[in-house]
Amino acid sequence: MKDIWSQEGRVALERDFWIAVMKGQRDLGVPIPADAIKDYEKARGQIDLASIAKRERVTLHDVKARIEEFSDLAKRQFIHLGLTSRDLTENVEQLQVFRSLKLVQVKSAAALLALAQQAEAYRDLMITGRTHNVPAQPTTFGKRLAMFGQELLVAFARLEDLLERYPVRGLKGAVGTQLDQLTLLGGDSNKVDQLEARVLKHLGFHASLSAVGQIYPRTLDFDVVTALHQVAASAASCATTLRLMAGAGLLTEGFQAGQVGSSAMPHKVNARNCERICAFSTVIAGYVTMTSGLSGHQWNEGDVSCSVVRRVALPDAFFALDGSLETFITVLRQMEVFPATVVAENERHLPFLATTTILMEAVKRGAGRETAHEAIKEHALAAAKALRSGNGDADLLGRLAGDRRIGLGKRALQLILNENARFVGAAPHQVDAFLAEVKPLARRFRGAADYQPAPLL
Amino acid sequence: MKDIWSQEGRVALERDFWIAVMKGQRDLGVPIPADAIKDYEKARGQIDLASIAKRERVTLHDVKARIEEFSDLAKRQFIHLGLTSRDLTENVEQLQVFRSLKLVQVKSAAALLALAQQAEAYRDLMITGRTHNVPAQPTTFGKRLAMFGQELLVAFARLEDLLERYPVRGLKGAVGTQLDQLTLLGGDSNKVDQLEARVLKHLGFHASLSAVGQIYPRTLDFDVVTALHQVAASAASCATTLRLMAGAGLLTEGFQAGQVGSSAMPHKVNARNCERICAFSTVIAGYVTMTSGLSGHQWNEGDVSCSVVRRVALPDAFFALDGSLETFITVLRQMEVFPATVVAENERHLPFLATTTILMEAVKRGAGRETAHEAIKEHALAAAKALRSGNGDADLLGRLAGDRRIGLGKRALQLILNENARFVGAAPHQVDAFLAEVKPLARRFRGAADYQPAPLL
Amino acid sequence: MKDIWSQEGRVALERDFWIAVMKGQRDLGVPIPADAIKDYEKARGQIDLASIAKRERVTLHDVKARIEEFSDLAKRQFIHLGLTSRDLTENVEQLQVFRSLKLVQVKSAAALLALAQQAEAYRDLMITGRTHNVPAQPTTFGKRLAMFGQELLVAFARLEDLLERYPVRGLKGAVGTQLDQLTLLGGDSNKVDQLEARVLKHLGFHASLSAVGQIYPRTLDFDVVTALHQVAASAASCATTLRLMAGAGLLTEGFQAGQVGSSAMPHKVNARNCERICAFSTVIAGYVTMTSGLSGHQWNEGDVSCSVVRRVALPDAFFALDGSLETFITVLRQMEVFPATVVAENERHLPFLATTTILMEAVKRGAGRETAHEAIKEHALAAAKALRSGNGDADLLGRLAGDRRIGLGKRALQLILNENARFVGAAPHQVDAFLAEVKPLARRFRGAADYQPAPLL
Amino acid sequence: MKDIWSQEGRVALERDFWIAVMKGQRDLGVPIPADAIKDYEKARGQIDLASIAKRERVTLHDVKARIEEFSDLAKRQFIHLGLTSRDLTENVEQLQVFRSLKLVQVKSAAALLALAQQAEAYRDLMITGRTHNVPAQPTTFGKRLAMFGQELLVAFARLEDLLERYPVRGLKGAVGTQLDQLTLLGGDSNKVDQLEARVLKHLGFHASLSAVGQIYPRTLDFDVVTALHQVAASAASCATTLRLMAGAGLLTEGFQAGQVGSSAMPHKVNARNCERICAFSTVIAGYVTMTSGLSGHQWNEGDVSCSVVRRVALPDAFFALDGSLETFITVLRQMEVFPATVVAENERHLPFLATTTILMEAVKRGAGRETAHEAIKEHALAAAKALRSGNGDADLLGRLAGDRRIGLGKRALQLILNENARFVGAAPHQVDAFLAEVKPLARRFRGAADYQPAPLL
Repeated sequence: MKDIWSQEGRVALERDFWIAVMKGQRDLGVPIPADAIKDYEKARGQIDLASIAKRERVTLHDVKARIEEFSDLAKRQFIHLGLTSRDLTENVEQLQVFRSLKLVQVKSAAALLALAQQAEAYRDLMITGRTHNVPAQPTTFGKRLAMFGQELLVAFARLEDLLERYPVRGLKGAVGTQLDQLTLLGGDSNKVDQLEARVLKHLGFHASLSAVGQIYPRTLDFDVVTALHQVAASAASCATTLRLMAGAGLLTEGFQAGQVGSSAMPHKVNARNCERICAFSTVIAGYVTMTSGLSGHQWNEGDVSCSVVRRVALPDAFFALDGSLETFITVLRQMEVFPATVVAENERHLPFLATTTILMEAVKRGAGRETAHEAIKEHALAAAKALRSGNGDADLLGRLAGDRRIGLGKRALQLILNENARFVGAAPHQVDAFLAEVKPLARRFRGAADYQPAPLL
Repeated sequence: MKDIWSQEGRVALERDFWIAVMKGQRDLGVPIPADAIKDYEKARGQIDLASIAKRERVTLHDVKARIEEFSDLAKRQFIHLGLTSRDLTENVEQLQVFRSLKLVQVKSAAALLALAQQAEAYRDLMITGRTHNVPAQPTTFGKRLAMFGQELLVAFARLEDLLERYPVRGLKGAVGTQLDQLTLLGGDSNKVDQLEARVLKHLGFHASLSAVGQIYPRTLDFDVVTALHQVAASAASCATTLRLMAGAGLLTEGFQAGQVGSSAMPHKVNARNCERICAFSTVIAGYVTMTSGLSGHQWNEGDVSCSVVRRVALPDAFFALDGSLETFITVLRQMEVFPATVVAENERHLPFLATTTILMEAVKRGAGRETAHEAIKEHALAAAKALRSGNGDADLLGRLAGDRRIGLGKRALQLILNENARFVGAAPHQVDAFLAEVKPLARRFRGAADYQPAPLL
Repeated sequence: MKDIWSQEGRVALERDFWIAVMKGQRDLGVPIPADAIKDYEKARGQIDLASIAKRERVTLHDVKARIEEFSDLAKRQFIHLGLTSRDLTENVEQLQVFRSLKLVQVKSAAALLALAQQAEAYRDLMITGRTHNVPAQPTTFGKRLAMFGQELLVAFARLEDLLERYPVRGLKGAVGTQLDQLTLLGGDSNKVDQLEARVLKHLGFHASLSAVGQIYPRTLDFDVVTALHQVAASAASCATTLRLMAGAGLLTEGFQAGQVGSSAMPHKVNARNCERICAFSTVIAGYVTMTSGLSGHQWNEGDVSCSVVRRVALPDAFFALDGSLETFITVLRQMEVFPATVVAENERHLPFLATTTILMEAVKRGAGRETAHEAIKEHALAAAKALRSGNGDADLLGRLAGDRRIGLGKRALQLILNENARFVGAAPHQVDAFLAEVKPLARRFRGAADYQPAPLL
Repeated sequence: MKDIWSQEGRVALERDFWIAVMKGQRDLGVPIPADAIKDYEKARGQIDLASIAKRERVTLHDVKARIEEFSDLAKRQFIHLGLTSRDLTENVEQLQVFRSLKLVQVKSAAALLALAQQAEAYRDLMITGRTHNVPAQPTTFGKRLAMFGQELLVAFARLEDLLERYPVRGLKGAVGTQLDQLTLLGGDSNKVDQLEARVLKHLGFHASLSAVGQIYPRTLDFDVVTALHQVAASAASCATTLRLMAGAGLLTEGFQAGQVGSSAMPHKVNARNCERICAFSTVIAGYVTMTSGLSGHQWNEGDVSCSVVRRVALPDAFFALDGSLETFITVLRQMEVFPATVVAENERHLPFLATTTILMEAVKRGAGRETAHEAIKEHALAAAKALRSGNGDADLLGRLAGDRRIGLGKRALQLILNENARFVGAAPHQVDAFLAEVKPLARRFRGAADYQPAPLL
């Protein structure tokens, strides 16, 4: 990701672009000597950012500075013919975006595969499912991971749609009318189309925009950054829940050699990386606002009130997502569940977790749903109250057995509880469905299945 | 749009949903009497919002209140068996979203077709193209409209992708494990799948999510609202430029009978509707932030810290976009270009607008690009200065003709200016390309081509 | 809050405003018959929203419609002399904002006082303090509440600053130059100043803006809405932590008569209201984005591209905050701590919570900080591992006693643990400091100390 | 600004902080040898970022790495006694924020003074005031600048409020209870207070927070960043209008030596710096969203899910605002009005701009306001239509003179127009009021009046 957005990388992309345009122009009849192109090709690799910066301080125009640098190196004046700055910068920046999106796609696939691996490992481990952060019904830890994987899959599908249709501006000139290329190529619009097609091919794009101004529509940047946010937020949802579980002592996100929880409290196993994943999502939400602030504000054929914004929001959103995915995959590789605590939590919450099953059984045996619901509610609340205050009888099962509105005896109730393996419902099968969807990605994206993130700081 | 999101409409959808579930459950063996279903069907249309509100004040639970109301009307207790509130509300809300998206799709198509109609009408009308809000090169007004149409097309493509893949949560139970339906249907996961498929078919969805918790992933709401913003912002970009043009006296967005510009200055033809279109885009950006604030914050199997947010952001974002599209189509139907002012502006800015063409011609005849550029720049700046201050000789053509670095005589320069029709470059052909892309929508979406918005306030 | 922002209330405010202007104008020499003013005063109370709406459909101008309605009722034509629409609407809307801010101030004071009451009640109740959501050191529940109270106090201080300086636009005319009032009052700028001062006095403002255009600066709306967000977010931080505590079974936000946790799981005591408080904060964050989207976008002397945005964001942000504060006060009044669970949690985490104290004592007796830290870390991690896996010796105290790097014997360590009351450090005293700051608000804001929110839905 | 936020600057601040704490601790009885403090003081200046980074890769804990580095350099182990990481970082970061705010205050004062200078220079230059971007009434250019200055003044007042009350977290320990300092200082809370007071004095703060957790409330960051946005947006409103005026050829933001408008169109005088000012405002809006995303999300005594966000949003928001103010002051120093174009625009729009004055005069002579308004409207619309289409009689004055509903003859109307100097109303006096408010800042902030920004790129 750093290579794509580095200054050097960008200058190199621009020079390749200029050379591709020159070659195309020459082939289509513009009098550019073959030797001139060779001179530029020779100078291509001499990237001196300091010299360019110095020129920019004189010209006060970034593209102009880079034109002069390249032409002085080549001792020629043939690049940028019939081009406006934006013919160069729009296309090169879109290429940076496009390549970054592809990288995000691969790392998202890696994250999905890492999730799948853990979901498979914990497919059947019963945990206390929670809604409103309160124990609700059992589920399995594998299912919980698959659930967050499902969210990431939705984001992944959006990413794929975007990559499929991401269109490039092309060679359209100062206000988008292709006037200068037309002039250069003798008014032959056919040649102009050929030139553009050739350059797009060089950039590796399939689709282009037919009617643009100086710039491509800035809602396209919004499209991109919101797609990134969707990926980052999916990881953050999972990380948030891991933080909750760490707080309950159910797991750790993992602890690298040498790491301390805090300088003052060494034993603490903070879910620091998970917090970081959440932070990246919040950061990208800020870039969403930036690109949203560009959307709908085009003046005429375009201006550069977007320029500073895009220089910040585009690379930084990609960097943030890259950080998020690297961290997320690390966590998924390193995390450990604490089985003793998991079992203790389950036991603490049974038979409360079974009340919906008891309600179902009661209804099946003829009780009215609302009546049985009311009865169970009374007893559950009373038993819970006894537990929390330390006073009174907390025996929920006994209370339920004694109530005729429910119609289930103690033995029937005990039988229900004994079958607690089935309390996880279809969770394991849902894990299987998730795996079936994700595993094929390992073949589509080589190296994704065992992708190793760089060590985190 | 109002019908989809009205309280009455929602209650009706819920009741349909409950009945569909009961029928499915009965067919699959749950002992629900056929008469009970009939009783519910009879009560279906008796929607008394006041009575429901009264119940909610007692139960402090909205779904519970609506269950009781419906069951009391039917004098039965068979709805909502094995369901949790979210089994009902998630699916019904997703249905509201899905139907609203389809409506947005149709109105976006209508807006595209209205844009196409005007782009065609003004295909060849030369106007002064501007970048940085400053005259740059000529274009045509039709091309300018096509350019904004292009932005809307990108948003439209995203909308279509979204509709294609928009998945529904389905009947998954309290924590997503389908436990209660499994219990109800005798542990037969096959039957559970059949029940869900039946209900989804009732709702009209193709795709469902296999692994969810209590809720569907909230990034999906973000996906929806950002798609809406992209549509609204595309309209806003166009409206912003129309406001700029109105300020220069080039056009009016139209003036309805009885309308006054301001109570104090009656002659003012304010681009009030265009301002409104911009406002709607800013409003939706706020809903983007709201749904972004939900994304990445799921706790365990889900909570309802999202509930108030979604009740505000989802309907209101759709209402805002509906308002935007209605207004946009109205503007596109009513707007009028002032030809006299357009011609006057063009004349004021020629031959400045021709400098890039002159540069191209000079290069074609052997001048070095950078040298000629420098020369033209000197003369253009001097002429412009003379114009603005009222002092000195503003004759740009004369200045250029006298400079050997450029190498074009007065006659050659005059010939270039005379051919000003070609200054618009490929603009008319780009309009044609836009029309070719948009016009087929008239067949796909019946009524879109001549859709008449309701009168605006 | 509803009264301030209702349509009727607004029409009433406008009519008062017009009458105040007329009286001022008459006193300063404009030929307005005293009888005419009486006629308007008589018509003042006849507010017929339907009739106004009908007029607006004709005039397509909201203010114009309301002028005509009022003048037709009075059968006169003397209101709105020398005014532009914005002279009316800006001032009236600022009055709505100003009054709403005052209401927010009172309810914020009520929330602070409710927090203080609970902080006092739980001043000494030791709980397990957490950072990174993991047990860190003991604190008291009163201190935790005071901590969130402190955050609210910061927001409260900002609110007070804002109310102190909130400036009103005043009577400035179409582009802010006061031209029409000057004309009306014979060019006497002294009289114009008098008229404005009189009207401001009527509105109850102290400060006005001296140089404005058609509108007051929209960053002022951003100032207001961000102040609201700060209040809402402070409540949300507290609510978030209550949700965490509810998840650990440490407390309940309270349970009203008739309320059920969920239709399927009746015993669940969901922190539903706390979730709602969090939701309101997220909602207001959206209005922050909306007003941020208005900021920095003024064109010339102003336009109404802000109009729709302000109609949504201003009232809705105030409504959301009102909902948040009402809910927050309710929660603070109803919540109950479960003492048995609190004690159990503390015991589970001692002596881990004491490690920093042990470290301090070791350093006091001569151990090097980094060395002792390393030793404690080793033992704490090993003991924690034993606990979580169920294998090995979890006796942290024994482990520490045996390590010479720490230099504290078993007896010394036990003595430290026995003094666990002092583990809460200065927490109770910090509660006292908070109370000292907040309690005086009860005198400044009558009724705030025992403010009873309306029952929640 | 760069110095404040540089890594080196931060390490230096931290070391100063540690030394201040050690000195205080020693004075209050903690056995720290005087020589040890001297050793740390000697090592203070040896800042080796590479070595720290290397340590962080081992410890995976940034503060731990910086402790070790400093202690190894001093060959001692006495820093950070009784401190948690956040005791260090929160206070040091708040110091960075506080100093940056003061810098912003000075540069905002400089911007206000630069605005005042231009407002004074153009106090009486009549321009065409616009609302809805359409000519409305005359104003002066000085008044227009004062109007944007007024917006900046509102932001400035908020900044001053914030600086006045900005409170620092202080030395509160791991969960905010000051436990470890209490332990270290023998349980004497008086000594703890003295230590904190001493350190705060070292940092230069007046106010501290009495009840905090591990962190200070994150809404305080939101408070700061929204204040920055308000400043940036005020500058952006002005810049937006300058861009509009540049588009109409009325002024230029200035053109530095060597600058070209565009590589293809050298004569273009783009309002590039103004666009940049707008961009900075949009960028900061993104940081508003980031800090808004932290607000309301504190878990218990705090976590670091905010950490990455604050590392991005705080420095970058300050850098962006710094860029904005530097650019804004540059523009205000360099801009030039084109008098010939200004006069031409005024003439084009008279007598339309006089219609409200004509209306006022008509009412003064007895015409009914609504009747005269209707009549003027008819004629104004007809005349405007004639102008735009090139057909018919555009003579508005003649049309008005012929209408008895208005009651003003041609001579009376001509007299009104001749007095066009008074059409600017109170604009010049409003400029004076603005100057009276701003000029005293030159004395309060030395160097602000003639602050010279660094050359822009």
